[in-house]
Amino acid sequence: MLQSKLFTKTRREGPKDELAKNASLLVRAGFVHKEMAGVYSFLPLGLKVLKKVESIIREEMEKLGGQEVSLASLQDKNIWEKSGRWNDEVVDNWFKSSLKNKNEIGFASTHEEPLTALLKDHINSHRDLPVYIFQIQTKFRNETRAKSGLMRGREFLMKDLYSFSKNEEEHQKFYESVKKSYLRIFKKIGLTDYFLTFASGGIFSRYSHEFQAVSEAGEDIIYIDQKQKIAVNKEVFSPDVLKNLGLSEGQMEEKKSIEIGNIFSLGTRFSDAFGLTFVDKDGQKKPVIMGSYGIGLGRIIGTVAEMLSDERGLVWPKEIAPFKIHLIRLGEDSKTKKEANAFYKKFLEEGVEVLYDDRDVSAGEKFSDSDLIGIPYRVIVSKKIIADGGRLEVRERKTGKTKKINFKQTLQLIK
Amino acid sequence: MLQSKLFTKTRREGPKDELAKNASLLVRAGFVHKEMAGVYSFLPLGLKVLKKVESIIREEMEKLGGQEVSLASLQDKNIWEKSGRWNDEVVDNWFKSSLKNKNEIGFASTHEEPLTALLKDHINSHRDLPVYIFQIQTKFRNETRAKSGLMRGREFLMKDLYSFSKNEEEHQKFYESVKKSYLRIFKKIGLTDYFLTFASGGIFSRYSHEFQAVSEAGEDIIYIDQKQKIAVNKEVFSPDVLKNLGLSEGQMEEKKSIEIGNIFSLGTRFSDAFGLTFVDKDGQKKPVIMGSYGIGLGRIIGTVAEMLSDERGLVWPKEIAPFKIHLIRLGEDSKTKKEANAFYKKFLEEGVEVLYDDRDVSAGEKFSDSDLIGIPYRVIVSKKIIADGGRLEVRERKTGKTKKINFKQTLQLIK
Repeated sequence: MLQSKLFTKTRREGPKDELAKNASLLVRAGFVHKEMAGVYSFLPLGLKVLKKVESIIREEMEKLGGQEVSLASLQDKNIWEKSGRWNDEVVDNWFKSSLKNKNEIGFASTHEEPLTALLKDHINSHRDLPVYIFQIQTKFRNETRAKSGLMRGREFLMKDLYSFSKNEEEHQKFYESVKKSYLRIFKKIGLTDYFLTFASGGIFSRYSHEFQAVSEAGEDIIYIDQKQKIAVNKEVFSPDVLKNLGLSEGQMEEKKSIEIGNIFSLGTRFSDAFGLTFVDKDGQKKPVIMGSYGIGLGRIIGTVAEMLSDERGLVWPKEIAPFKIHLIRLGEDSKTKKEANAFYKKFLEEGVEVLYDDRDVSAGEKFSDSDLIGIPYRVIVSKKIIADGGRLEVRERKTGKTKKINFKQTLQLIK
Repeated sequence: MLQSKLFTKTRREGPKDELAKNASLLVRAGFVHKEMAGVYSFLPLGLKVLKKVESIIREEMEKLGGQEVSLASLQDKNIWEKSGRWNDEVVDNWFKSSLKNKNEIGFASTHEEPLTALLKDHINSHRDLPVYIFQIQTKFRNETRAKSGLMRGREFLMKDLYSFSKNEEEHQKFYESVKKSYLRIFKKIGLTDYFLTFASGGIFSRYSHEFQAVSEAGEDIIYIDQKQKIAVNKEVFSPDVLKNLGLSEGQMEEKKSIEIGNIFSLGTRFSDAFGLTFVDKDGQKKPVIMGSYGIGLGRIIGTVAEMLSDERGLVWPKEIAPFKIHLIRLGEDSKTKKEANAFYKKFLEEGVEVLYDDRDVSAGEKFSDSDLIGIPYRVIVSKKIIADGGRLEVRERKTGKTKKINFKQTLQLIK
């Protein structure tokens, strides 16, 4: 893409009311626009990152046998009353409104209820199970405070997966496969520094599992056993739990952390409320065993922006960067322009995603914009380069290491 | 995909309270689930159609030079007060709610205001224009009545494109190119029976343009000149308008119709309200000239379901069908199973999207499900076919025409 055509501009300062580093950097670099606390619009660069995260997650969900849906946001009060979660004293982050006929409606913050209700049309027999259903869809949560940028949104894109199994054994097997799937997702996204964390499991299971990335910007507190690479969320941290997990308090280190994913066993909490049953091989009617598994996409992007950035700006991992190469032309003479345009075309022909800074602005402005935007490789075309036999100056954003290599070598490097 | 794994089941009857043929068929075939009037969730088959429509539209928007964004649904009251469209007496279909601190918020039914406001950060000079920005994003509209199925949603996915131009001439040129783009979109989707319709243009232009498909299920009334292939919406139908357009009342036929797309010239209505200006080449500060261009994706799918279906069920045009082939195995003996499985594999290897009915149910049930789901080609594998030297029985859903052809000829046919 030509940077001269990209409608967003970088800016020196984040929004005045923005306390979070992640959001401030993303706004300054033109990835998102802050509409209000906890509400961000995605601009072209940000949307590119979001779609890459989405496609990494979708691929893994499909590998798990997940079938994709897109459930409505608008929620029928009657359905949520069945599970007891309509009441604001039970769920305190509803956005509610009403239809013209005064019927109350809500905006979904999660989808266990409507999905369980709709599956009653489709599940009858053990032959219909197990089934795994996911979506990548917008959630609304009326958070009291939203001061952590993209890490606590009042509106955010979430991948939510729900499993429906015949029995506990089938459920546990899937639950473990989701754990492995999440490890692959985070690795591919470039988030490698996190801990599998034991947290409250609610009524039907002793624990749920969270994936927690250690960061001062986090809103959670966890206790880490560095040797075993596991952690315990403060909410369940007790002598009893430590004993149960074979951990010792003396080994545990307290840290702030960001929850980047979670997986829950739901047992029959929702299938009981909605009467979601199936007839098993033995002719008996049994309730379906459920699980739910979330990853917030905006939060993932916020976490990457928070944890992997440096004092000059964002640093995107290859797999989710908006472009692989930031091609920068230095010099406004016709020869340099011609040469830089030719390289741009060559990269495109090779299928490389490239942002081409073809603007007539100073080298300093180009460099500081490039650092702020954080594309993995910066490639410079200038008079000097041309005189040097066409070898390109390629700089890795993350390490700052610069190499002089030819076009083919550049393609190899960025793979 | 194996139909035995698809979690949705077809049903004989639509929801009791569903008056619209389009929604009733889509629910019965398992494409969508009705949450409440005007609110539908997309199930796997429906989501596949939705994504195809989305990708056809996105491709055209990118051809126009559109840059994709995804703006938030949650709306700040202060922004909408600037344009005067916060008031419920001005815009009567708001869903509103409030933050914990009692600040009122709304859920966006369109995005002129927030987009114009955010562009103030990015547009300063004539060099920044023109710019074309689009999104494919969920809208909320608190409709008083929503009885037309997917054709009038309280929540629906919309493609909205906004243009920002330096002057009227630049605007008009783009406006005309969007018209052509819409023609290509509808053609590719398989909707060819519609009229370019003159409708009210609001304050800043005499007319807007609608694309209206003639249907008894439509909520609009238009007057058609069949010879000139244009129409006039009832809302502006007057002797004066007819004269202006060179039409004669005697030639006009009154019809009900469905609005499948619209394009508006907005003039400086919003740029004035927000002070979105640019410095032109002559050093003068000028307001940006805007246009907006919508297509409702759910409505497009509803229109196809309404207009192209027959008494047996849905009939999908090739380009937006959830699968190209519905492969049906007749017979539960091991030889037929082996043969049908082999054809399924061969189709997949050729990159053909195929739904494979591998279920052990009667031929009658398979055929009626297949007609209801409406995939363009049905391919039958049975003992008879195998005895016939591997020629497949291929039936076109739309025409009912059946051919006996070999595998290669089948691939040719469905292209």
